[in-house]
Amino acid sequence: MEFFQLHTIAEVLSLLERFPPLEGEEVSLAAAWNRVLAHSVAATADVPEFDRACMDGYAVRARDTFGAGPGSPAWLTIVGEVAMGAAPRQALAPGQVMRIATGGMLPPGADAVVMVEYTQELGDQTLEVYRSVAPLENVVQRGEDVQAGTVLLTAGTRLRAQDIGLLAAMGIPQVQVRRRPRVAIIATGDEIVPISAPLPPGKMRDANSSALAAQVQAYGGEPWPLGIIPDDLDAWQETVGATLEGADLILLSGGSSVGTRDLAVTTVRSFPQAEILVHGVAISPGKPTILATIDNKPLFGLPGHPVSAMVVMEILVKPLLLRLLGQTEVEPGWGHTVTARLSRNLASAPGREEFIRVRLRREGETLWADPVLGKSGLISTMVKADGLVRIPLQIEGLEAGEAVEVTVFRI
Amino acid sequence: MEFFQLHTIAEVLSLLERFPPLEGEEVSLAAAWNRVLAHSVAATADVPEFDRACMDGYAVRARDTFGAGPGSPAWLTIVGEVAMGAAPRQALAPGQVMRIATGGMLPPGADAVVMVEYTQELGDQTLEVYRSVAPLENVVQRGEDVQAGTVLLTAGTRLRAQDIGLLAAMGIPQVQVRRRPRVAIIATGDEIVPISAPLPPGKMRDANSSALAAQVQAYGGEPWPLGIIPDDLDAWQETVGATLEGADLILLSGGSSVGTRDLAVTTVRSFPQAEILVHGVAISPGKPTILATIDNKPLFGLPGHPVSAMVVMEILVKPLLLRLLGQTEVEPGWGHTVTARLSRNLASAPGREEFIRVRLRREGETLWADPVLGKSGLISTMVKADGLVRIPLQIEGLEAGEAVEVTVFRI
Repeated sequence: MEFFQLHTIAEVLSLLERFPPLEGEEVSLAAAWNRVLAHSVAATADVPEFDRACMDGYAVRARDTFGAGPGSPAWLTIVGEVAMGAAPRQALAPGQVMRIATGGMLPPGADAVVMVEYTQELGDQTLEVYRSVAPLENVVQRGEDVQAGTVLLTAGTRLRAQDIGLLAAMGIPQVQVRRRPRVAIIATGDEIVPISAPLPPGKMRDANSSALAAQVQAYGGEPWPLGIIPDDLDAWQETVGATLEGADLILLSGGSSVGTRDLAVTTVRSFPQAEILVHGVAISPGKPTILATIDNKPLFGLPGHPVSAMVVMEILVKPLLLRLLGQTEVEPGWGHTVTARLSRNLASAPGREEFIRVRLRREGETLWADPVLGKSGLISTMVKADGLVRIPLQIEGLEAGEAVEVTVFRI
Repeated sequence: MEFFQLHTIAEVLSLLERFPPLEGEEVSLAAAWNRVLAHSVAATADVPEFDRACMDGYAVRARDTFGAGPGSPAWLTIVGEVAMGAAPRQALAPGQVMRIATGGMLPPGADAVVMVEYTQELGDQTLEVYRSVAPLENVVQRGEDVQAGTVLLTAGTRLRAQDIGLLAAMGIPQVQVRRRPRVAIIATGDEIVPISAPLPPGKMRDANSSALAAQVQAYGGEPWPLGIIPDDLDAWQETVGATLEGADLILLSGGSSVGTRDLAVTTVRSFPQAEILVHGVAISPGKPTILATIDNKPLFGLPGHPVSAMVVMEILVKPLLLRLLGQTEVEPGWGHTVTARLSRNLASAPGREEFIRVRLRREGETLWADPVLGKSGLISTMVKADGLVRIPLQIEGLEAGEAVEVTVFRI
């Protein structure tokens, strides 16, 4: 067996920088939620394009109300009503007002809106105003939401509901977003059977394909599950070769036992333009991870143990998918991690980063992180856990009562 | 105009309890991610169904290794190899071992695995063992992942990747999940035009339909956008009537100006079996919110200002959608909120709960929440914000430097 130097997580992450983002594709706003913008978007016009009322009342010239109060109302002349969704038919001369509803366009000459609550109509033409308004009061000015030319949404933004609302307000019905990475998922192992097949003695069901596909979905990719292949070089070469055309990333799960550990390496090396970048990572669980390229296409060989595979997905594959999506903004820590207090000592071997499954439990004011112990072959330990605590490379362990950052599993 | 008593947020939330979860539907595991389980799922068999190796090495009787060490190896007899994915062909007698790889089935008589690192083969038949193993060492026992009959996934769970992996491991290819609520979205207002139409003077583009549809997607519903209707009772009655068959929830956006405020109420009342439950909520922004039922179907009348509409969606409509989805587990606070320090004073009128848009900013060790000020008609303020800070009902404001909980906007 060849000797390979373990790579640190940081080293693997920096190797991922060689993979450029995928091309963009145009989608309608209805399909744009949770997609990543391929280009920055500037407003082509002011939003709104005119001064409008943001309260129901009367469009006025603010100075006509100065000094008005409950005991000294201003008397102004009603010259009409601003029809909703239409340009006012006339301008306001001094001393004149027009009825206006929220969203109505201010007539020329008007610079404020008096709320209906502070007025009383005396007949059809006269308005008593009991409160003065400042210029621009109760008005949304032209360009106050967005000024023409402003870039509020930059390339690499993952579009939230409000971002889509803003695009709609700017009159942009389609946007260029990064294509969803298509992720080939190949389960390997003579002992693995499909989940709906009967389970003969000695066989195991393929839990990884389903779990990895769901993680790919969660990160914004499109899973392409290719089923199970036996531990056989021909099958590996054929299946990996068949994905090179359609996949943006290839995931092989399994093949970390001695008998098969080199199958992934041999398979990769059998292709021209292939390179093993990483064979072994200083991470626990997940050490026997492989990162390779074939024809500039990334391939991850993931451990077969489901917990190991899922942790490597979260720590190493997710950043690659975000790169392929061009999500330039580093995910901010807020909202993804919580600080909790560790409920027991945890030992760790130095020289690797360890990820411990924890369950969160609130007790009075304290949020406790209870380690969920169990072998990395037990997927139930991931089901019982709410997140992961990281023990850094050179730390020999964490003590009960210590404050730890928990990366919470998100849907 | 009729007088309506404002409802508190808590009162509205308790009124939502009258709406039962939707029926279940069967989906394959490939489509189950982020869906909500309709029934609890118990394991029908042990996982795994046999004791298996979780390391590469030799299946042994642990007691045969007791006392073994680097200077005093145990000599044992190799009687064959466990083929991957097959039942071993023979049992181990005392003093015997079999080669086994990770995932292999332990032969009868074996109760532990010695890692290959602590052994050396002397010829074909003899194994030197340099380290003793305890019973069950390097073995995943039958039922250690899940015991038959155990319920690890309960009704109301929103399925994460690991939950789907567990279902796969248990051999369950389909699950009953709650049907996605179909949410009719109706924009109203004479001044509103579709986003791709030209924008005549006095008109506004329909930002709300797109933003609300994205929020519905984010909460796990299925948006059913019905376009824009004018402020006209016939149009309202006809459009709302047309949704009663296919929608699980009806959202009307707009209609909060004086002229149209009662259109929603009049429309609702024109149907038999209709009831206005709430007309006005002690929330800011979002006060002119309506909650009604028609034929036991919920209808929300949302304010027209995009920020108000989006805040009401987050605070009131999302809980209703989670109810319709049967998501019984209260969303845990962890991972959705962060504690930050407010960077300026915020005043608030008592008697309503106020939600302030904030931007998060890290400065050294401190996470600051900078209020994003601006009228609730400005959707750009939501784009600039990372989350919301709540000022409770009876508080008159928050002071700069205070620690606040920020509910982070999630994709």
